[in-house]
Amino acid sequence: MTKYVYDFSEGGKDMKDLLGGKGANLAEMTNLGLPVPPGFVITTEACRAFLTTGEVPDGLTAEIDQHLADLEQAMGKRLGDARDPLLVSVRSGGKFSMPGMMDTVLNIGLNDESVEGLTGQSGSDRFAWDSYRRLVQMFGKTVLGVDGEAFEHVFDEAKRAKGTTDDLQLDAADLRVIVQRFQAIVQEHTGEPFPQDPRKQLGRAVQAVFESWNTERAKLYRRQERIPGDLGTAVSVCSMVFGNLGMDSGTGVAFTRDPGSGAQGVYGDYLQNAQGEDVVAGIRNTLQLEQLEGLDKASYDELIATMATLETHYRDLCDIEFTIERGTLWMLQTRVGKRTAGAAFRIATQLVDEGLIDEDEALLRVTGAQLAQLMFPHFDSTDSATVLTRAMGASPGAAVGKVVFDSETAVAWAARGEAVVLVRRETNPDDLSGMIAAQGILTSRGGKTSHAAVVARGMGKTCVCGAEELEVDVQARTITAADGTVVGEGDVLSIDGTTGEVFLGEVAVTPSPVVQYFEGELAAGDGDDLVQAVHRLVVHADATRRLGVRTNADNPEDSQRARRYGAEGIGLCRTEHMFLGERRQLVEDLVLADDETEQEQALAAMLPLQREDFIGILRAMDGLPVTVRLLDPPLHEFLPDLLELQVEAAVAEATGRPVDAKRQALLVHVRRLHESNPMIGLRGVRLGLVVPGLFAVQVRALAEAAAELKAEGLDPRPEVMVPLVSAVQELEIVREEAERVLAEVAAQTGQPVDVLIGTMIEIPRAALTSGSIATSADFFSFGTNDLTQMGFGFSRDDVEVSFFSRYLELGVFGVSPFESIDESGIGRLVAISVEEGRAAKPGLKIGVCGEHGGDPASVHFFHQVGLDYVSCSPFRVPVARLEAGRAALGPEISDTR
Amino acid sequence: MTKYVYDFSEGGKDMKDLLGGKGANLAEMTNLGLPVPPGFVITTEACRAFLTTGEVPDGLTAEIDQHLADLEQAMGKRLGDARDPLLVSVRSGGKFSMPGMMDTVLNIGLNDESVEGLTGQSGSDRFAWDSYRRLVQMFGKTVLGVDGEAFEHVFDEAKRAKGTTDDLQLDAADLRVIVQRFQAIVQEHTGEPFPQDPRKQLGRAVQAVFESWNTERAKLYRRQERIPGDLGTAVSVCSMVFGNLGMDSGTGVAFTRDPGSGAQGVYGDYLQNAQGEDVVAGIRNTLQLEQLEGLDKASYDELIATMATLETHYRDLCDIEFTIERGTLWMLQTRVGKRTAGAAFRIATQLVDEGLIDEDEALLRVTGAQLAQLMFPHFDSTDSATVLTRAMGASPGAAVGKVVFDSETAVAWAARGEAVVLVRRETNPDDLSGMIAAQGILTSRGGKTSHAAVVARGMGKTCVCGAEELEVDVQARTITAADGTVVGEGDVLSIDGTTGEVFLGEVAVTPSPVVQYFEGELAAGDGDDLVQAVHRLVVHADATRRLGVRTNADNPEDSQRARRYGAEGIGLCRTEHMFLGERRQLVEDLVLADDETEQEQALAAMLPLQREDFIGILRAMDGLPVTVRLLDPPLHEFLPDLLELQVEAAVAEATGRPVDAKRQALLVHVRRLHESNPMIGLRGVRLGLVVPGLFAVQVRALAEAAAELKAEGLDPRPEVMVPLVSAVQELEIVREEAERVLAEVAAQTGQPVDVLIGTMIEIPRAALTSGSIATSADFFSFGTNDLTQMGFGFSRDDVEVSFFSRYLELGVFGVSPFESIDESGIGRLVAISVEEGRAAKPGLKIGVCGEHGGDPASVHFFHQVGLDYVSCSPFRVPVARLEAGRAALGPEISDTR
Repeated sequence: MTKYVYDFSEGGKDMKDLLGGKGANLAEMTNLGLPVPPGFVITTEACRAFLTTGEVPDGLTAEIDQHLADLEQAMGKRLGDARDPLLVSVRSGGKFSMPGMMDTVLNIGLNDESVEGLTGQSGSDRFAWDSYRRLVQMFGKTVLGVDGEAFEHVFDEAKRAKGTTDDLQLDAADLRVIVQRFQAIVQEHTGEPFPQDPRKQLGRAVQAVFESWNTERAKLYRRQERIPGDLGTAVSVCSMVFGNLGMDSGTGVAFTRDPGSGAQGVYGDYLQNAQGEDVVAGIRNTLQLEQLEGLDKASYDELIATMATLETHYRDLCDIEFTIERGTLWMLQTRVGKRTAGAAFRIATQLVDEGLIDEDEALLRVTGAQLAQLMFPHFDSTDSATVLTRAMGASPGAAVGKVVFDSETAVAWAARGEAVVLVRRETNPDDLSGMIAAQGILTSRGGKTSHAAVVARGMGKTCVCGAEELEVDVQARTITAADGTVVGEGDVLSIDGTTGEVFLGEVAVTPSPVVQYFEGELAAGDGDDLVQAVHRLVVHADATRRLGVRTNADNPEDSQRARRYGAEGIGLCRTEHMFLGERRQLVEDLVLADDETEQEQALAAMLPLQREDFIGILRAMDGLPVTVRLLDPPLHEFLPDLLELQVEAAVAEATGRPVDAKRQALLVHVRRLHESNPMIGLRGVRLGLVVPGLFAVQVRALAEAAAELKAEGLDPRPEVMVPLVSAVQELEIVREEAERVLAEVAAQTGQPVDVLIGTMIEIPRAALTSGSIATSADFFSFGTNDLTQMGFGFSRDDVEVSFFSRYLELGVFGVSPFESIDESGIGRLVAISVEEGRAAKPGLKIGVCGEHGGDPASVHFFHQVGLDYVSCSPFRVPVARLEAGRAALGPEISDTR
Repeated sequence: MTKYVYDFSEGGKDMKDLLGGKGANLAEMTNLGLPVPPGFVITTEACRAFLTTGEVPDGLTAEIDQHLADLEQAMGKRLGDARDPLLVSVRSGGKFSMPGMMDTVLNIGLNDESVEGLTGQSGSDRFAWDSYRRLVQMFGKTVLGVDGEAFEHVFDEAKRAKGTTDDLQLDAADLRVIVQRFQAIVQEHTGEPFPQDPRKQLGRAVQAVFESWNTERAKLYRRQERIPGDLGTAVSVCSMVFGNLGMDSGTGVAFTRDPGSGAQGVYGDYLQNAQGEDVVAGIRNTLQLEQLEGLDKASYDELIATMATLETHYRDLCDIEFTIERGTLWMLQTRVGKRTAGAAFRIATQLVDEGLIDEDEALLRVTGAQLAQLMFPHFDSTDSATVLTRAMGASPGAAVGKVVFDSETAVAWAARGEAVVLVRRETNPDDLSGMIAAQGILTSRGGKTSHAAVVARGMGKTCVCGAEELEVDVQARTITAADGTVVGEGDVLSIDGTTGEVFLGEVAVTPSPVVQYFEGELAAGDGDDLVQAVHRLVVHADATRRLGVRTNADNPEDSQRARRYGAEGIGLCRTEHMFLGERRQLVEDLVLADDETEQEQALAAMLPLQREDFIGILRAMDGLPVTVRLLDPPLHEFLPDLLELQVEAAVAEATGRPVDAKRQALLVHVRRLHESNPMIGLRGVRLGLVVPGLFAVQVRALAEAAAELKAEGLDPRPEVMVPLVSAVQELEIVREEAERVLAEVAAQTGQPVDVLIGTMIEIPRAALTSGSIATSADFFSFGTNDLTQMGFGFSRDDVEVSFFSRYLELGVFGVSPFESIDESGIGRLVAISVEEGRAAKPGLKIGVCGEHGGDPASVHFFHQVGLDYVSCSPFRVPVARLEAGRAALGPEISDTR
């Protein structure tokens, strides 16, 4: 017979799978000897059985009865007894905390008779009727599905009749009437009277918790958070203690350290004569926890001691809920507390210094996402700044600029050097150019999955959204705040993408001290203990990690910065920029070449420029590997826009204006090169095989640059990487040509340089045929951006703006697959490729150079599948170092965010 | 010790891996007791060892010496003996016949001394010196790498000096001088004299054969044909017999049946006093084989008897080479002969009737590609037609039309209803619109991998290319033929894409009798034995196959035709056409809708139209499954072109003309919907999730159509297929909505219809996560077009014209992956999906509806990985039936094409 019910004394904190987070921690506290009201937990297994069959599983009812009987005996009371009733709370709690599920029903066991018994026992009829009122309301709403508004309405009415807004002003007589009205509402909405049988109340509440696992909201949340749908929830049944027995009672929440700063000490709120959710609901002003000392020193001291016990036991910041019933402290919940990024680093190192955890554990307690957050600039001090509103921080950072209301203005003003903040009610794909031009984006509608939020995060641009207090009038070009303040076009706003605050006027931005530390402008020992904490943990990560960390950099400046940030080489040097800006002309010459001679001339003109590029980068990365990717994008990207040329020609024709012959020739070529889907068209190695000499000139430039530095006595380590390979045959042909050029340059310069020749793995077919591709490659580097584009069939340029916000909203994604690698699909391609590439060529060097290289979750994945290194943007190098260290410590990411 | 050399008597036809095709068949004939000159074969294993180490493997030299000694003993002569020399031929021959490798060196063993011995033995000094001349020439060219032109030049000079063009007019004295000159050429080019040591001649020839495995041409050919690079070639060493001993000697080639028609009888050519390649080289006019009977009846009779033996033994058409040396017949080679499509069907059924093979074997002897070829229309009779030229048949079919020289004219004339043939020197991507508009394409340059050829085959359009005798002057708009005939724009040409013939004027086109048979216009027993043969083999295939065959059809007409062709349902009914033509307006209304009401109105307007579509198709396919794919392409495809609207607006602005407000609104929407890469953008299920109600209206239309037919007493079997799914979550959401709609319609109509809901697997990630997708799907259908597009990152619209011809030329592909499924990459995705889909849901129904469903090689693959059915265009249904039958007979495709 499966055991479905556990007494608190039978469980422990490691039984979250079976008892849920809440139940497991109640059990843990019970066994620690802390004052937890007695109770028991119904397992997730019981829930699963119920959801599978639709019926309460065999034996569960009997087990509950038995545990209830034990509880009654322990408490010396009977559930719902008319004279001295035992009351219980029923709480849901799965392995993962999950909004959308039924939360809590308090005071189960009260009915028209036992309410009198409670009166007798407590000596307070107000208390008894308030408790009964709460039961009918909570049970009605969450178990019976009655619209909560109906109860609120009656309650507010009663207070209005009494001329008050304070619940405490309602007396027992008022509450008795309210209970009657509430019962009438239940009768009306359900067709049945409010259940009087206490055991039935309990049974129905338990079943309602089970059923709440599958509400639409819960399912959507799970889809969004990628929580398996078949875990089920546990149910905690706990004997009631009462914070609403009078002013000598109360309820509170607390943290064992400041979750905002990490500072040591006790932080919390306390509310007298209150129960359950009253503290959080904010219906009355709470007291600071310290004030409790003056009210009830004994309870306060006991609480402080209990919190110390918990912190030592959990070896981490704890977040607790407690109730004081007439001077007696009861612990109702504890869990490891959430904290800010800075607090996470400070607390982790504090705990090391306190001897509670070791450095490995400390490293697991911080995340790369937190470190990244600490590297954003922030506002200097906002104390004196005028807050216009507080909304949702949708994409972190601090942005200051003049308000504009449309993309055209944003682009125009930005073009003349103005910093602008784009303000819209909500954004859509039409606003893209404005979002790119702006320092930050502010919207009055939509949440974290709105178009503005998703796109801004994708761009790494500061964004505040859902500022509903602001009335944005795009026609009138004004923002009107709740207090009547009007902000017009051109006025300056400062927005904080982390806190969601919007300030009037300019707020000074200070750089992150963590960045100053990495830049070498601040020593680890200097000043801020945050810098000290970051330093210690990043150094420990370096000592721990197996993964190398390289950077993506295309110029000497980025290369140098990345070196300062700890990069161990360049994993991706894009050669595209050689064809942009003034050098576009080179491409036009190449495309417009009439014969081979002209084509060769065009290529020859490229050679010295590209060589200079490489000299600078190789010099900056002296002694470290530099992986140079041969030209990747489609040729037409370096040419004028077809639309523009076509419009120009049409207008010229319509107006009889003369047409520039060169522009017309260009139109012909651009039209010929135009592709319906350039992202999956003629680019990368395909272009290299179609345009003779293009790759050869790049390889020559690289070889000549390396030879020159070698002659200077430096140690250049260039690597040639072929993009967009889908078949080994492509690589074989390019390799043959590259080897020929390298041999020629070595002969000409007398400076032979060892150059690895490898390939991007960014096409699904390349991953799937890695066994054969490896035979012709010295290394693989995953281009996970393209691998995601092709593996999902997602054109990044299009889909992030056209439907990703909708997909996040629907829970099709939990996170954009361009942000974190999709392990089951794209990641599987990576795993297949690593395994089969290495099987064909043991010791094959393998890295990743897509943007996922700097994404925390993805770094863990790359560690697990056995990559040699990740490569990411310079700014992300510290994040990757940290996460690579964490990944080396174990497969699970510790969830302390 | 590895055995590297096999006497002919030690081998057999099944040893092709080790002895090569040529060696294995020589051994087979030897063991059949046929007159094969004695000899031996050096194995492919010896070649591989040589290529790996660069040195002749241990023991090989000794083994050759031993076999040579045995041969000398058997023949009673010694290699290169000054008095009575044994001469040998050395021939290469791998498992697969492969142009680009060294072919043959004859007469090894001759030198300045043994040539005199040969004179003495043969009694003909002309013969001896002609043989020596041949040796120096062949050995010089193929073994020593001397440019063949140098020899040709001397030889032609000698003939010119003699005032003749006939080799036979050169006498012994002439040939002796030529040999001296040839030797001087060798000395000059190699710095060494022509080798006089016969054993060294043999050794170097063998080594040259080994080395020829890795010439650039051989490597390119292998890359193109996907022949593994490490097989190596065998070398046959055979004692020489001489067809050039006088007019009582000769050499010939023959077939045991007519390889053109399949008719029984002997077909071949014979050339007197000739050796080796002379017959094929066409240097003199050959005799028809029958004429040999008059010249040498005994040899002729022996030949006929030998051919009968071979045919009975090989149980197939054989292709042979033989030599008659002074009245003695010698067999030099045999192999199973190539044949035309019609001959293949006729011969296969003849052999069944003759009791040589059974019907299974007959089915393996024909291919779907041959059947497809027989289904093209052909020219009625071209006897009276004037042949303008013969070139390369690059894409089969028969096309008739007026000559045009550029795409603009092609499009314009085609638009007014004229049939045109596009004539170009060569085509490039600019010619695409013209190729689409034309009936056929004719080019004067380029081969089977030229742009014109590749694109035309992709389109299924008739194409003749490489017509080098025609001078195409696009400026002057004329074609000038070799005989001076001039064809101008507007003149009519008829081109045969199978034979490569180009005819002046209109040639009547007759439909294929095979198509007439499938259409039911011709009974299987009527007239043509070809129809009879096709009928027998297709019927046998149906009895043999496990794979079902469905069709891709979007209207009642195609559905009916496909049923006649044997389709067992519709595997893909595209619903895109409902939004094209006049119905475009519906989409504009949907896109321009200002609010939900207008949007719902637009959708409501679609409902009855789509319902009528489905009623027609379900009626035509009564009792058979009809898989309806929900809307797949991007919305903007149904809207006006952005470029057009933009130009219109710009011109209006520039000229001050008034702008149509509706067009301007449309421009705004089209610009918003515009995507950089629509193929991997907002389409398929993504569109369905973004445009509310779109999929629901399609499902409703289908359900209502089915209900209506069911009410009539019919048996509609609709299936709903969701396109472009990449994650199970997408499918779950659509499924929920579809089930709701189906339930509503069932309730409304009182006609519940069972409707399967399944998904396309056309995104790599879908294939890779098939285990989870299967949980929400009743069936899978592979969209291998998109799977190939995304798996390779190949935008079909772009890459087929931009670089596929170059890739085929370079051997990156052997065949376009859009034509035959790429087994190692895309096919692997299919295999993974089948395995994991079925593991998650045993019995999951799985088919394929990409164009590969009608491709012979792909059908075999789909059989092997366990699909339930293939679906292809109506025309391809018979091909798929045939190939599905063949696939069921075994994993290997018998190579008789």
